[in-house]
Amino acid sequence: MHQIKALAFDVFGTVVDWRGSIIAEGAAFEREHNLKPIDWPRFADAWRAGYMPAMDRVRRGELGWLKIDELHRMILDDLVRDFGIAGLNEDAMEHLNHVWHRLRPWPDSVPGLTRLKRKFVVTTLSNGNLSLLVNMARNAGLPWDCVISAELFHHYKPDPEAYRGCAELLDVAPDELLMVASHKSDLRAAKTVGLRTAFIRRPMEFGSPATADLKAEADFDFNVDSIEELAAALDT
Amino acid sequence: MHQIKALAFDVFGTVVDWRGSIIAEGAAFEREHNLKPIDWPRFADAWRAGYMPAMDRVRRGELGWLKIDELHRMILDDLVRDFGIAGLNEDAMEHLNHVWHRLRPWPDSVPGLTRLKRKFVVTTLSNGNLSLLVNMARNAGLPWDCVISAELFHHYKPDPEAYRGCAELLDVAPDELLMVASHKSDLRAAKTVGLRTAFIRRPMEFGSPATADLKAEADFDFNVDSIEELAAALDT
Repeated sequence: MHQIKALAFDVFGTVVDWRGSIIAEGAAFEREHNLKPIDWPRFADAWRAGYMPAMDRVRRGELGWLKIDELHRMILDDLVRDFGIAGLNEDAMEHLNHVWHRLRPWPDSVPGLTRLKRKFVVTTLSNGNLSLLVNMARNAGLPWDCVISAELFHHYKPDPEAYRGCAELLDVAPDELLMVASHKSDLRAAKTVGLRTAFIRRPMEFGSPATADLKAEADFDFNVDSIEELAAALDT
Repeated sequence: MHQIKALAFDVFGTVVDWRGSIIAEGAAFEREHNLKPIDWPRFADAWRAGYMPAMDRVRRGELGWLKIDELHRMILDDLVRDFGIAGLNEDAMEHLNHVWHRLRPWPDSVPGLTRLKRKFVVTTLSNGNLSLLVNMARNAGLPWDCVISAELFHHYKPDPEAYRGCAELLDVAPDELLMVASHKSDLRAAKTVGLRTAFIRRPMEFGSPATADLKAEADFDFNVDSIEELAAALDT
């Protein structure tokens, strides 16, 4: 076993609170555009629920490569219809679609990453497109050493090319790279290509601890409750 | 003409002083390894001079894709022979090869980038491989929003794919992206695909102002003496 040299973070859910951020922005958006009341928790959940099937269409080759911004927009166009939202012009639709660029970090994310960065290279390894991740980092103050996205490989996680490509770009062996995520499927795929794994419990990702799988797993290298707890476990 | 949204920086020579850094590290390396005296200015110049022909072999397809670390090592292996340097083990050779990861910034680079970052996305667009640029940024405190390398496109500058690929990843129009470099050939290639251009004079890049082309050019959008001067010209 090599020493860990770099940490690759899943972002949506692991580092930022997509659901809480969309609900908060949605309420302000609704007032600003004088929309009839919208169930923003349900809207956020439906948006996120559309994301995996859309990515899977790209992964299976039914769609050519599309950025997450484009997949989010395809889903949003349907949602606006389904929720009976009318009267939004193109600028308003684009602004709403870019809420994913403005997601807010969990309270431990910035302090935890700042500590980890002292000792390790810290990067994203997200299905979000590069410009989304850059805008998010600038907005939220996330101190990445670099921004690595599935977009660079034209392979969405959990395709093995994304994990392998990340290690190759960082010039580290797979077992020198620690994948950090709040979703076990992401970690299991990373483990398959030889990466180390850290599971971060995010009980509120889907709005209630009852909807999240929070069980520690013996085959992950770390099971923690926050990025700061991971920083402590890695002596930073 | 769109407003500028992002700045892409050439790195070797534009942001960091490769020649001065190699000379300084070389002197220390020579003492540490008890080598007979080496003409480090000539060594640095020969290393850099080998870089363009090596990249051109990749660009013409004579060599498959190789990272700059690998091209630097090919050149270094020849140089060690040419300079009659003996007795270095593999660890020492790798350490010397990685001097390019530890290049020091010009004095205006960190303060200039810090100012520009307030208003614009600031990225590298360098032929250096991603891990080299990440290690350099960590070592030198360069505050990039992201690290974009020719490695991501498997096309070295001045291939148009590198400039176009950078704009596409940042999701900006070509004329929303300002290429910043101390080499006119880099800027001319960027201009060909529609990028804006800023020329930074670096009179000491090759050791003497007499060896540098410092003439302002009317077809560049900016001609400046430092990154701080560029920050002022862009009202940051």
